[in-house]
Amino acid sequence: MNKIPKSHPRYLSLVTREQISKGMKQGVVHETGLIAHGRGEAFDYLLGETTILPTNKAAKAAAAALLAGNNPVISVNGNVAVLAANSCVKLANLIPAKLEINLFHRTQMRVNKIAVLLQTHGANTVYGVHPNAKIPGLDHDRALCEKEGIFTADVVLIPLEDGDRCQALQKMGKMVIAIDLNPLSRTAQAATITIVDNVTRALPQIEHWVKELKGKKQSELEKILKTWDNSKNLSSVMSFLSKRLNSLS
Amino acid sequence: MNKIPKSHPRYLSLVTREQISKGMKQGVVHETGLIAHGRGEAFDYLLGETTILPTNKAAKAAAAALLAGNNPVISVNGNVAVLAANSCVKLANLIPAKLEINLFHRTQMRVNKIAVLLQTHGANTVYGVHPNAKIPGLDHDRALCEKEGIFTADVVLIPLEDGDRCQALQKMGKMVIAIDLNPLSRTAQAATITIVDNVTRALPQIEHWVKELKGKKQSELEKILKTWDNSKNLSSVMSFLSKRLNSLS
Repeated sequence: MNKIPKSHPRYLSLVTREQISKGMKQGVVHETGLIAHGRGEAFDYLLGETTILPTNKAAKAAAAALLAGNNPVISVNGNVAVLAANSCVKLANLIPAKLEINLFHRTQMRVNKIAVLLQTHGANTVYGVHPNAKIPGLDHDRALCEKEGIFTADVVLIPLEDGDRCQALQKMGKMVIAIDLNPLSRTAQAATITIVDNVTRALPQIEHWVKELKGKKQSELEKILKTWDNSKNLSSVMSFLSKRLNSLS
Repeated sequence: MNKIPKSHPRYLSLVTREQISKGMKQGVVHETGLIAHGRGEAFDYLLGETTILPTNKAAKAAAAALLAGNNPVISVNGNVAVLAANSCVKLANLIPAKLEINLFHRTQMRVNKIAVLLQTHGANTVYGVHPNAKIPGLDHDRALCEKEGIFTADVVLIPLEDGDRCQALQKMGKMVIAIDLNPLSRTAQAATITIVDNVTRALPQIEHWVKELKGKKQSELEKILKTWDNSKNLSSVMSFLSKRLNSLS
């Protein structure tokens, strides 16, 4: 870390890259998480490593959904834990929402390490350590969940999730909020609300909107959700990216 | 591997992802190579995982440069070795050009493993195993090179290289050919000829053009190089990406 000066134009992206590498060595991040992180880096680069207007709107809708939900749950995997454990815990405590660990390449060791990481940042109950239910239609360990957590959740926030799981949660009738830097991914396309942003910026952005909207009537929150058009918002993001590439060419 | 059906629309990208993961476990690929691979995947996704027209033109110019050179060298790192050892060796034997191992995170163990991999695919001399020179201006191990190889090369092909090294080679007065999926990267911007393509497609593409141009007069090869405009070609690539994103939005 001391090799990277803070004045470096891409300091933050280099810091998160080191966090992910370190996370793998510590057994929190799976090796495929490094490749996924690289894909995110590329899209973040195209975004200009900043939160754009359509994304801010999506964060507002996400905050409304999480506040309006009866049992909102934030799903946490290895990359999310390493990059944003603190933001996840802060957001969960603020809404309040539950935190549940869900891993594609699940080992009990990794689950336990992530649980400790979340607890270190002030999480109370961490779901997903002892799963007792399954998301229908998924044949991997990522189907494993908890009855009181994701299984009965009406709103699920899935930062950095794969497309299969996003679609399976949708099929269960849940409102799914995705954080995904690739606006073209199946996750981004399938979610109810897609936040095309870096998880380290998106979570504080949702937190900002939760603070703004907390205390509002349920009808006001539902109005925000009723007028939400995810396809239109994704189009705005892609249009932004297209124009940015064009301006650089 | 047997989990991925060949009919999967993204079969090849999933295969290369597994190769990179396996390469890390075997000690050939550094962990940061996984993140770099992910960045490449994202840009390849935007390209449509295909070779586009401007890239084909760049591959032709690259072939001309490699054939026109007095001492052309192909630089090989961990990711390149895992993804395209066979293509590198075939191309080196065809031109003929030298093969030199150059690693950012150099250990003698990794160097030896890559040398064995190249030799398994039919490489004769592999340079870079016992470096005896340094590229000026680089303070990392990636400065290490061989006098008979990269140090005195007039044309260097650098697939999947970092920006610092690309710029340092340019400063030595060499003609630098980069293969980089990110048209905006420092490597892509600094190279003499930039091939914005997946290394697994780019190397066979160069090989195709080497076969086409072999035996042509030096003056004909030089004509191709004199009319080469790298900035213009990169603009065409970005314009393509911009239009593709726009068509998808």
